[in-house]
Amino acid sequence: MAEMTFGSDNHAGLVPEVLEAISSANIGHASGYGADPWTEAAEARLRDTFGDAAFALCLTGTGANVVALSLALRGWECVLAAKGAHIDLDEAGAPERITGSKIETVATPDGRLTPELLEGALRSREQHHVVQRVVSITQSTECGTAYSTAAVQELADWAHAHDMLLHVDGARLCNAAVHNGCGLGEVVPGADIISFGLTKNGAMGAEVVVARNPDLRGPIQNARKQATQLQSKMRFVAAQVDALLTDDRWRLHAAHANAMAARLASGIADVPGVSIDYPVEANAVFAVLPAARIEALAATHQFYIWDAPRNVARLMTAWDTTPADVDALVADIASA
Amino acid sequence: MAEMTFGSDNHAGLVPEVLEAISSANIGHASGYGADPWTEAAEARLRDTFGDAAFALCLTGTGANVVALSLALRGWECVLAAKGAHIDLDEAGAPERITGSKIETVATPDGRLTPELLEGALRSREQHHVVQRVVSITQSTECGTAYSTAAVQELADWAHAHDMLLHVDGARLCNAAVHNGCGLGEVVPGADIISFGLTKNGAMGAEVVVARNPDLRGPIQNARKQATQLQSKMRFVAAQVDALLTDDRWRLHAAHANAMAARLASGIADVPGVSIDYPVEANAVFAVLPAARIEALAATHQFYIWDAPRNVARLMTAWDTTPADVDALVADIASA
Amino acid sequence: MAEMTFGSDNHAGLVPEVLEAISSANIGHASGYGADPWTEAAEARLRDTFGDAAFALCLTGTGANVVALSLALRGWECVLAAKGAHIDLDEAGAPERITGSKIETVATPDGRLTPELLEGALRSREQHHVVQRVVSITQSTECGTAYSTAAVQELADWAHAHDMLLHVDGARLCNAAVHNGCGLGEVVPGADIISFGLTKNGAMGAEVVVARNPDLRGPIQNARKQATQLQSKMRFVAAQVDALLTDDRWRLHAAHANAMAARLASGIADVPGVSIDYPVEANAVFAVLPAARIEALAATHQFYIWDAPRNVARLMTAWDTTPADVDALVADIASA
Amino acid sequence: MAEMTFGSDNHAGLVPEVLEAISSANIGHASGYGADPWTEAAEARLRDTFGDAAFALCLTGTGANVVALSLALRGWECVLAAKGAHIDLDEAGAPERITGSKIETVATPDGRLTPELLEGALRSREQHHVVQRVVSITQSTECGTAYSTAAVQELADWAHAHDMLLHVDGARLCNAAVHNGCGLGEVVPGADIISFGLTKNGAMGAEVVVARNPDLRGPIQNARKQATQLQSKMRFVAAQVDALLTDDRWRLHAAHANAMAARLASGIADVPGVSIDYPVEANAVFAVLPAARIEALAATHQFYIWDAPRNVARLMTAWDTTPADVDALVADIASA
Repeated sequence: MAEMTFGSDNHAGLVPEVLEAISSANIGHASGYGADPWTEAAEARLRDTFGDAAFALCLTGTGANVVALSLALRGWECVLAAKGAHIDLDEAGAPERITGSKIETVATPDGRLTPELLEGALRSREQHHVVQRVVSITQSTECGTAYSTAAVQELADWAHAHDMLLHVDGARLCNAAVHNGCGLGEVVPGADIISFGLTKNGAMGAEVVVARNPDLRGPIQNARKQATQLQSKMRFVAAQVDALLTDDRWRLHAAHANAMAARLASGIADVPGVSIDYPVEANAVFAVLPAARIEALAATHQFYIWDAPRNVARLMTAWDTTPADVDALVADIASA
Repeated sequence: MAEMTFGSDNHAGLVPEVLEAISSANIGHASGYGADPWTEAAEARLRDTFGDAAFALCLTGTGANVVALSLALRGWECVLAAKGAHIDLDEAGAPERITGSKIETVATPDGRLTPELLEGALRSREQHHVVQRVVSITQSTECGTAYSTAAVQELADWAHAHDMLLHVDGARLCNAAVHNGCGLGEVVPGADIISFGLTKNGAMGAEVVVARNPDLRGPIQNARKQATQLQSKMRFVAAQVDALLTDDRWRLHAAHANAMAARLASGIADVPGVSIDYPVEANAVFAVLPAARIEALAATHQFYIWDAPRNVARLMTAWDTTPADVDALVADIASA
Repeated sequence: MAEMTFGSDNHAGLVPEVLEAISSANIGHASGYGADPWTEAAEARLRDTFGDAAFALCLTGTGANVVALSLALRGWECVLAAKGAHIDLDEAGAPERITGSKIETVATPDGRLTPELLEGALRSREQHHVVQRVVSITQSTECGTAYSTAAVQELADWAHAHDMLLHVDGARLCNAAVHNGCGLGEVVPGADIISFGLTKNGAMGAEVVVARNPDLRGPIQNARKQATQLQSKMRFVAAQVDALLTDDRWRLHAAHANAMAARLASGIADVPGVSIDYPVEANAVFAVLPAARIEALAATHQFYIWDAPRNVARLMTAWDTTPADVDALVADIASA
Repeated sequence: MAEMTFGSDNHAGLVPEVLEAISSANIGHASGYGADPWTEAAEARLRDTFGDAAFALCLTGTGANVVALSLALRGWECVLAAKGAHIDLDEAGAPERITGSKIETVATPDGRLTPELLEGALRSREQHHVVQRVVSITQSTECGTAYSTAAVQELADWAHAHDMLLHVDGARLCNAAVHNGCGLGEVVPGADIISFGLTKNGAMGAEVVVARNPDLRGPIQNARKQATQLQSKMRFVAAQVDALLTDDRWRLHAAHANAMAARLASGIADVPGVSIDYPVEANAVFAVLPAARIEALAATHQFYIWDAPRNVARLMTAWDTTPADVDALVADIASA
């Protein structure tokens, strides 16, 4: 499967500067577990990017989400998330198992929660129920949409007004920042804690918990270690983070992936029998494809059939998707 | 801290073939989460090495231990481990938090459990107590000693006779295999499940849960994902495993590290005021150093003072420790 | 609030034979934690009632559910339950916190799951998802409906065919048995494990986990103790169970409560502006009441407004509800 | 086993006023889950007794301990307790399973922790270790000794100086108050949270979590429900608490039990071959008995052989132990 696929942005490999950074970090001895110059450099860049916060480099998106949620929650509290959120559906129950807390989901039209939708799920805080404490959003969403910064601020205000915290699953935060034309530090205003992912941006495995709310910072390193996310040779993770934050290289990769999704959406929008489910605002296109050909197309282009009864394909683009790859897919979809 | 240290075998970087393997794996797209050719190749080598078993590649030693223990334990069961075991002392409570189970420790003279020591900790299986279900040993141990294969088999037999399972924390399994002059598949006979580590052997971050007992195999992938140990771009972990198992390269690195520890021990054994705490059977030397000079030595050679009141230094060697490094340390220790 | 209420069947006190049994058990010394003659007697009656099984007397319904689910589940597995199930909504997250497992809910028209509804929630058992392992039903349901024994058997068959187990939350199992005209041992055929409640039948606090499936029996006492459900003076719980199972006294109380609900439903069915939501098959009536008067009625008769926007009242009857109480409520509802 | 035993203070039944209180509470309907007049009355008495605090009535000692510890701990934090503490040894791992936290034990000569002993167990708060957050003591202890109030205050001060909290397992707090000649509110000065037990004082099953530290009060009801400790007919638990706190009746029962232990100790102290292990300060006597006769004595008087190799018997007295019972045991021990 070395040719291009549209299955996931994590099918792509490493951007060259990540591999170069790993290689460069392989010199001599360094203290383990984050007490090394690469981690120091990465944290300096993270501070430049996100402002004052506590940071914990992690290895997987699930891991970063678990660390973030375990800092924000007590066992009798719960998370409100959009139906289909990664933390609810695709993390094998890791958040519940490790934090002990429940996740409650709210149906959304396009992956985006709103204060109105949350109002509908509000419950009294009496002893029989779990206490609704965290609103978790995904920026950009599992539907390929992105919250505007104003919408995030509105959710943060709503959460805080209800004595809740705002968590952001930012596995694709870079794509959302590109969409919003702003920096990573501005794309989720008001968020208390962020799982910031770089793996889908061309890293090998580099995620960062960004604890902005001062109440959540103290035990961030303990929570990371307890969630099994602390690697001994952490310098190699830090080097990846440093490389992608240097000169905002993350922006190039995310902008490219977003542009490829836009090109794809635009290319197939008018094909008879094709329709697109959500606004294409990041690097995913959810397209209804002709029933007779979706299976063959999926086999050729290695994408997931997301909703089989409705013939919906999820088409993901990545930092290494080329215009030619997109055009070839468009042509195949369009061909009679 | 680019110069040589004796602080930990995880202060060392990557052996060249690991970096080369990562680089070589960075070609085009590959399915995520282990459905890639590199994982297939790594599992084939693991099967060659360990025989019939289920395997789960992991990212950290703590992660591998948690996956292994969560497969072996129900919440009301507990683990028996040596006092000072990594799972008890150095994993920030990850096993308890994630498995829900308790760890009970047994004091040992040199890191090695024996059936006799375990007998002393046996308890009736009545409802007020946790049920003793798993014996966990570390091979090689946190004291730099290694179990003989006969001793491991004896512990496995004892465990099975008491309706228990044997888990091995094999963060340094390679060093133990070298000491025992056998293969990785032979060094812990009778073990039901193994956390097999390659990070201290020169990998970036590559650990493998080896589930030999058929009862523990089924949900190994679920347990791994739930423990946050499944990376999307798993091919880069698999490539490391493949590289180190190819032509038994792990053996060269572990043999070298063990030899450097032996050289060190032999060099300082007769220095007045120096004594060595445990048999040196792997890549660690625990040495009582002169009280007046241990601090200065630790600052120069970057090792841990393990037991300050007794002036015990832990001196770890790695794949990249050179004879000259060792001789320099010996000379410094010996100098009046 | 000593007068009659329709708020809950747990607003009622103790049936006389329960108080008498507690009093009679208060003679001299008895071994604690279930090693007493009262527990022996209660277990004999339970065996007569439910057949071959393992039994664990518990103190609360939530406790019994947690014990049952912790026996049936591993951490990476999940429960399928009806939306609105007590385990999901009203147990403060105890099942998730203690078992580590997730609960997934399925919407139902009347509290009853069916194989068809479950089919719609089925998911592949791949590593990213929790493994669907237990179907949990409530008999009688939170909507006051009861499964027929055939429907339960069908669910059990479906569960077993899908490598799942069937759990029954039987907080009101007695009411369901009365409705089905059968014994407690026949009312949930095929169920693997049952939380059997007597508190709503007139006990002070007496619930029993009934583990029928042999695979779930072994550690039942450990699971109970770990779930904090083992009282030292267990004889007083056992005496309650014994009293209510003797001569099937439970049946009198449940039959009475069911009859009062039927009388109530029949009394208000034709009142203009009143409608009844679900078939009245146990001891609950969910009635839409006139919007202008529901608040006043709730204040007088102490019932819960279950669904405020729709003006739905939950009217519960108990072992001590009298025909006169019912008639007074009917008259109040009917009065202009 | 209706005759007197020396096995445990929970072998005794109910003091008459408890049974009377339960019976009196059995009138008509009352709201469930603590919203009843009996709970209100019990809380008023608890406030009179303990001063300003939050209270949660519980059903078992293990349950109360779990509720208290879950309020005091985050998952990555741990408890320091005396070796042999009930929370560590006799609660089937409930604290670890439910709170996710670890318990570390410190050996003591007589069940009593001291600042000096705790100093020896102190560890740095770095990321690899669990954070030592709670000191848990048992008052009176599992060895039948009691802390002086000054000793408790000293431990509280030590804990607070080390950024820790003090928890008291007060299953026998009444016996300790009698020994110290003070009230329940004075016997553990400085404690942040207390598990206060009345079951061993003649209740059926009534324990109370007393959260003094304001930071631990807020979610006490959620924590109780999640720990499965909230009974629907809570009035019957509240009535027991009310009965035993009325006119300090608890003091009569505890004083009697303590006096019986003192009489027993004094009676056997000079018997040849008999020696007493710890100061007898509450209602337990740990006595070394003649090897040849300990088994027969245990069979007759139903006590536990606590330490078989040393022939140590644990002899517990209760509210209903009579001088004649004690004298009969003394006579049997003394008889050649």
